[in-house]
Amino acid sequence: MRVVGVIGGGQLARMMVPPAIELGLGISVLAESVNSSASIAATVVGDYRDAETVLAFAQNVDVVTFDHEHVPQDVLRGLVAAGVAVHPGPDALLYAQDKLLMRARLSELGLPVPDWASVASVAELEEFLSSHGGRAVVKTPRGGYDGKGVRVVSSAAEVADWFVADEPLLAEELVEFRRELSQVLARRPSGEIALWPVVESIQRDGVCAEVIAPAPGSAGRLADVAADVATAIAENLGVTGVLAVEMFETTDDRILVNELAMRPHNSGHWSIDGSTTSQFEQHLRAVLDLPLGATGCRDTWSVMVNVFGGLADERLPLALADQPDVKVHGYGKEPRPGRKAGHVTAGGDDLDDVVFRARAAAAFFED
Amino acid sequence: MRVVGVIGGGQLARMMVPPAIELGLGISVLAESVNSSASIAATVVGDYRDAETVLAFAQNVDVVTFDHEHVPQDVLRGLVAAGVAVHPGPDALLYAQDKLLMRARLSELGLPVPDWASVASVAELEEFLSSHGGRAVVKTPRGGYDGKGVRVVSSAAEVADWFVADEPLLAEELVEFRRELSQVLARRPSGEIALWPVVESIQRDGVCAEVIAPAPGSAGRLADVAADVATAIAENLGVTGVLAVEMFETTDDRILVNELAMRPHNSGHWSIDGSTTSQFEQHLRAVLDLPLGATGCRDTWSVMVNVFGGLADERLPLALADQPDVKVHGYGKEPRPGRKAGHVTAGGDDLDDVVFRARAAAAFFED
Repeated sequence: MRVVGVIGGGQLARMMVPPAIELGLGISVLAESVNSSASIAATVVGDYRDAETVLAFAQNVDVVTFDHEHVPQDVLRGLVAAGVAVHPGPDALLYAQDKLLMRARLSELGLPVPDWASVASVAELEEFLSSHGGRAVVKTPRGGYDGKGVRVVSSAAEVADWFVADEPLLAEELVEFRRELSQVLARRPSGEIALWPVVESIQRDGVCAEVIAPAPGSAGRLADVAADVATAIAENLGVTGVLAVEMFETTDDRILVNELAMRPHNSGHWSIDGSTTSQFEQHLRAVLDLPLGATGCRDTWSVMVNVFGGLADERLPLALADQPDVKVHGYGKEPRPGRKAGHVTAGGDDLDDVVFRARAAAAFFED
Repeated sequence: MRVVGVIGGGQLARMMVPPAIELGLGISVLAESVNSSASIAATVVGDYRDAETVLAFAQNVDVVTFDHEHVPQDVLRGLVAAGVAVHPGPDALLYAQDKLLMRARLSELGLPVPDWASVASVAELEEFLSSHGGRAVVKTPRGGYDGKGVRVVSSAAEVADWFVADEPLLAEELVEFRRELSQVLARRPSGEIALWPVVESIQRDGVCAEVIAPAPGSAGRLADVAADVATAIAENLGVTGVLAVEMFETTDDRILVNELAMRPHNSGHWSIDGSTTSQFEQHLRAVLDLPLGATGCRDTWSVMVNVFGGLADERLPLALADQPDVKVHGYGKEPRPGRKAGHVTAGGDDLDDVVFRARAAAAFFED
C-alpha cells in the first residue's frame, strides 16, 4: 500500500484523508498538536522545523507532501539528500515561501505580474510610492497568509515596523481589478497536468469568503489565458502536486498573477463536491505520480462559502434541514471568532439560486 | 462534537469515515483486529460478542451503529438498558438477524414475499418440495451472507447437514425472476425517510457483482412499488439508519422481498459518487437523528462494479490511466482470491458507455 506523509495537521491535511481512504491509500500526518484538524490520521506529533523529527516521520511513507509551505528549506533539502520523495520539492517551494523570489522569477519568465520592487528602506519605498501614484501594496516576503503580512500604504511610515528586520520588503502597484480569479491545477513529477476551470474568488478582509466555479463569463479567452499562465508557472518552476495561482482580472482586461500556493487551496474546495476529481484526491495522485483524474464539473455552477467561527453542534441540524442539497464540511476545530472552521458547497444550473442556497446554509453558522 | 461508534471494522465502517470527516463528526470503531479495513478510525480492538467490551466502547460515543448484523441480542439489549442510543435498535435488528422471523413478520404485514415455510425436519422439507414443483431455496435463518447459508435443492438430503443443529430452516419457493432489484433508504428515529431510486443488482455466484442506478425501466410503477414496500418495512419494523431491501422482479411482474440489510449495503455503494448524499453520509445523519440529505442522482446512470481479489499496487496506475472519469474505491484489504476488495463507479448519460467504462476499470484488478 502506498502511503502519503503530510507535514502539517490543518484542514488541508484533514481533507486529504477521505480520498486517501476511498482510493485505498495510506496517509499519515506530522501534526503540530494532538488535537489538530487532521488528528484522525495523525501518527506523529512533532515540530516540522526539526530535521530529525521530519526525517524520522519520512521513513514510513512513500512521499512527503504538505498542509502548509512553512517547512524550512534546510529541512526539505535534508529529506531529499536522504532519498525521500518530496512533492512539491524544495526548488519549487522556494517560490511559494518567498514572494520576492517569486516575483523575480515570474518577471524573468515574462509572465504578467503587477509592477513591483524589492524595497530595503523607507527611502526606497517612498521612491516606489512616488512613481506609482502615491499608493502601494507592501508585503513581507515570508510567512504571510490570509491577509497577514500585507498592507496597503500611502506612506512608508505605515510599514516602518517591518523594516526593523533588516530584510527587504516587496512593494507592488495597487492594481485596479474587476475581480480576483484562481486557477488551480495538479502536476505529476512525470509531467502530466490537469486543470480545473478558472474560478472567481471573493475576498473579505483579505481572506477568501466565496468561490464561484467556473468564474462567470470566463469561457474562452479568460479561461485560456489563466490556464496558460498557470501551466507555464507549474512547468517552469517544477511544481508537483496541486498549484493554485491567484490572479487579478484588471479593469483594463489584463490578467496579473497575485499569489502562488503549492498545495490544495481554499479556491479549490468546491471541487470536493463539484468536480469528478477533487483537488485533495488529485493532490494525492499527483504526489504519488499516479495518473490524474478527470477535472470536469459535476454541476453547471458550484458555489463555495467559507464558514468562520465554528460549526456549533446545535446549528448543524438547522443548516442540514434548511438546505438538504448543500454539502457541509467541518474542520473539527474549536470555535474561535474569525477562524476558518469549515465551508459549504452548493451546485446547480441557476447561479443566483446556487449562491442563495450556499449562503443560506453558511448563515446558520455565523456568529 | 457528535461521535458515532461503529461496531465492526469492515469496509462498511471504513466507508463511513470519509463522510464523518467531511461533516465534522467524530467516528470510532470497535474492530475485530488491528488491521481491519476501518483501522484508520479504530479506537478499540475487541470482541463484539462480549457485553463488557461493547458497553465500555459505547461510553465514549453518542450513538452505536453497525458494520454488520452479528451483534447478539443480549449485548444489544444490555446497551439499551444502560441508556445507550443504538440504531438500528435490537427490536428492528432481530429481523435482519433471523430470516424466519423476517419472513413471518413481512407475511403478517401483508408484504409480498415468496412462498415460504419453516421446516424443522427432512420430512417437512420434502413436503414443501413436493408442493413447490420439487425445487426450493433453503436458508439457514442466521449468519448467512453473500450466498453463504443458501442452497437451491431438489431433495432434502442436500441440506441434511443443516438439520443437525436441531433448529428449523427457511424453505422458500424458487422464484422465477427477471432480475434482482434493491431499494435503499434511510430513516431517522424521529421518522423522516429518504429513498434513493430503486437499483438493479446483478449477482454472480450469490454475490453482488454489479449495480445499475436507477434500475433501467423502473420509473413509474416499479419505482413506486419498491419505494412503498421498503417504506412499509422501515416504518413497521422501526428501522433506523440505512435499510436495504433486496427484491425479485418476477417474470410475471410481481415484486417479492428477498433479503433485508439494516446498514449501508453493497447495492448502495454507487451513491458515494452518484448521489448528492451517499448512503454512508446518510447513515451517519440518520443514526444521529440529523436531518437527511438530498438523494437525487448526480448522473443519468451510475454503474458500480465490485472488485474481487485485491487492488494490487501495480494495477492501480493502469486503471486510473485508462479510466480517468471512473472512481476507484479500495478497502485496504490484503489480496485473497474471491474477496471483495473494492469497487469502481462510473457515471454518465449513455448506459452502454457507463457500463463499459466501469467494467473496463474493474477488469484491471481481476486475477
